[in-house]
Amino acid sequence: MKTPKVQLLLTGNELMTGDIVDSNSAMIAQQLKELGLQISRKVTIADDLPLLINEINQLAAQADILIINGGLGPTVDDLTAQALAKATEVTLTEHSQALAHITSWCKKLGATLNEPNLKQAILPQGCEIIANKQGSAVGFKVNHLNCDIYCTPGVPHELSTMLIEQIKPDIMKKIPKELITDVTRLQVFGLGESTLQKMVNEQLPDWPSDIELGFRAGMPLLEVKLTTNSLQGHTQKEHWQQKISSLLDDHLIAQVTDKPLGLAKHLLLKLEQKNLKITTAESCTGGLIASMLTREAGSSQSFEAGFVTYSNAIKSKLLAVDEEILNNHGAVSEATVLAMAKGALLQSSADMVIAVSGVAGPEGGSKNKPVGTVWLAWGHKNNLKTVCLLIPLPRSHFQQYVASIGLDLIRRELINSQQTAQYIIERQVN
Amino acid sequence: MKTPKVQLLLTGNELMTGDIVDSNSAMIAQQLKELGLQISRKVTIADDLPLLINEINQLAAQADILIINGGLGPTVDDLTAQALAKATEVTLTEHSQALAHITSWCKKLGATLNEPNLKQAILPQGCEIIANKQGSAVGFKVNHLNCDIYCTPGVPHELSTMLIEQIKPDIMKKIPKELITDVTRLQVFGLGESTLQKMVNEQLPDWPSDIELGFRAGMPLLEVKLTTNSLQGHTQKEHWQQKISSLLDDHLIAQVTDKPLGLAKHLLLKLEQKNLKITTAESCTGGLIASMLTREAGSSQSFEAGFVTYSNAIKSKLLAVDEEILNNHGAVSEATVLAMAKGALLQSSADMVIAVSGVAGPEGGSKNKPVGTVWLAWGHKNNLKTVCLLIPLPRSHFQQYVASIGLDLIRRELINSQQTAQYIIERQVN
Repeated sequence: MKTPKVQLLLTGNELMTGDIVDSNSAMIAQQLKELGLQISRKVTIADDLPLLINEINQLAAQADILIINGGLGPTVDDLTAQALAKATEVTLTEHSQALAHITSWCKKLGATLNEPNLKQAILPQGCEIIANKQGSAVGFKVNHLNCDIYCTPGVPHELSTMLIEQIKPDIMKKIPKELITDVTRLQVFGLGESTLQKMVNEQLPDWPSDIELGFRAGMPLLEVKLTTNSLQGHTQKEHWQQKISSLLDDHLIAQVTDKPLGLAKHLLLKLEQKNLKITTAESCTGGLIASMLTREAGSSQSFEAGFVTYSNAIKSKLLAVDEEILNNHGAVSEATVLAMAKGALLQSSADMVIAVSGVAGPEGGSKNKPVGTVWLAWGHKNNLKTVCLLIPLPRSHFQQYVASIGLDLIRRELINSQQTAQYIIERQVN
Repeated sequence: MKTPKVQLLLTGNELMTGDIVDSNSAMIAQQLKELGLQISRKVTIADDLPLLINEINQLAAQADILIINGGLGPTVDDLTAQALAKATEVTLTEHSQALAHITSWCKKLGATLNEPNLKQAILPQGCEIIANKQGSAVGFKVNHLNCDIYCTPGVPHELSTMLIEQIKPDIMKKIPKELITDVTRLQVFGLGESTLQKMVNEQLPDWPSDIELGFRAGMPLLEVKLTTNSLQGHTQKEHWQQKISSLLDDHLIAQVTDKPLGLAKHLLLKLEQKNLKITTAESCTGGLIASMLTREAGSSQSFEAGFVTYSNAIKSKLLAVDEEILNNHGAVSEATVLAMAKGALLQSSADMVIAVSGVAGPEGGSKNKPVGTVWLAWGHKNNLKTVCLLIPLPRSHFQQYVASIGLDLIRRELINSQQTAQYIIERQVN
């Protein structure tokens, strides 16, 4: 068995006009990568029958696998079935399996089956139906010029389920076992790609070539991927996963399983386990930390009150920050942020707190406290800690990063971390 | 002059592996659309010299204009110049204009010119240099098989500037004047695409075919585009823009000029004009409204305090919501949300307030107050209003939409709107 050659055909007027950005092909590429397959060429065209037929013939002649995405819908500009029938020189016919699916789908939605829906059951004679658990349009597979052609829906979540549950297992049958890729993902906070790469180079210099190390920078989390595509790699992986996990130490949030959880969700789960409540006192992040917490379902278990105290007068009034502290030290100071934390704890009766005050910019910086300066106070009510960091990023990135750091500092308290986070090492001032 | 046929070639391994989602081609399509041009075919391939040469020859033979994106960088996998030299059968040579640009670019960054940088000045003999104001890699243009080939950088902001300032004006010379497109964009909140389309069909039935009406759904704003590509259309547009503006009424936020402002920014500008301060009292949105306001630079002029009161006890303690109200009416009620609004005004000394309490889900719904139920209280301290809406969306969409409605209700107060917003007409309960 040789590695099959894969090409991709995307169809849709909206892809040509720039009205939508195509994320489906990245999804398909990532899924195929886990099988050790790479897409060699990708063509995108508008909904035009002669163009489609021509392109299908060209691509099928060059590839072992062709995935066609889009054009399965009920409207007149959905032309994939028609184009495939023409290209493969068969007739279009009603498929009872497809009709049964559409009928039960409409029933489930309480909708009546109409003419356009029925069109979705008219498919090339002899094609193999691919189930669609998420939508009305079934996928289908035909073989043409020795190429397996998979026709898939354009709606991303329909495509995703069909890919993972139907198409990948089907393709897998054709691939040499030793080529199949195994990917492990680790969620990391507080380390940049280049820093981590440097740490690996220095501290794990004998990292094996059979385990590909990849990074996907996200905001706020970095995903570290360990990919193996050889038997050698597969067997070595657990050992090296442990090594890099030790290296990451408490920067490692979790291994990603099905759906990755965010920083806030990890934190809330730990708070709930320990039956602790948290409160927030925010100046420069303006409610973002509270918002990140309450975005998660079930957050009311651990979060009852948050304070957005933007002006000095409000810091005094709501959180009882002494006016003298504000006058003597300023709003962006250790004394102020500590007083904010204490005030929020007192007002809310929470057990833990995160308080932030900083210069988000673009205005408001000074020589001693330039834009990007931020004081944080955090921890358990019996053990508050403070730090001053310099994070000279544009306003909204600054807010996002500071809010994430706030959540991470609390997470580290909850796991009793003894390690100093890299962002403190790199960005601490004073 | 006929309309030129445009094709697009994207190159880059990262586009094939799914590590990045291509947004450049949508950007190119949008810019070309303003010239009345559509991309007919788009091919994406990895960084592979023979593939590139073959693809360039095929595409150039079929098109009048070919835009190649990517592969202009300094590393070994940047192959565009090399591929074009091979395809057009010329040699690669150092271009003094390109070298001067790279030299001054490195100087500007305080970096020393190195070998890889120098490679970016080695381009096909006889090509025309296209300036890059945003990065080190110049673009270039060659003619091959009667097709104008524009080679552009993959970095989005470099591409954007080059497209708008260099390539569009160059292409425009080749296009019949009457085909050039003129686009007007209107920012709208609170009307869905289909509702608006129906309103236009019913109330402006004689909408002229020379003015294309398009929608781009965003969260939270909808963009309405009026596109004309004929002299007839251009001259009629102002008249019809006024008609649709009247139809949109106070759902129209603003005409988009250079960089569209968000809902929060529009609101903050109006508050500042009128020298008014606003406060927030949030339950189900959990700080998101405060966060949307403070994301904007200068928000401290009009926003000093926000309250996130997630539990009943905290609503009583921080905002002095009477416990009897909570017991008799529940947290999601008119009486509670009104008391929250009054409490926040009192505590903050603000002039205006938005208060929300609702069932964000997925848990917590009941027969009388299902998931998606939300009470809002808002307005000037002397004139508070309330409404109950049903917005059965998934949690994070619910929060986003409710927060946006909160901001919009205040915006409508500030412009003394007499119109009932469509979201109230459609979603009001009780």
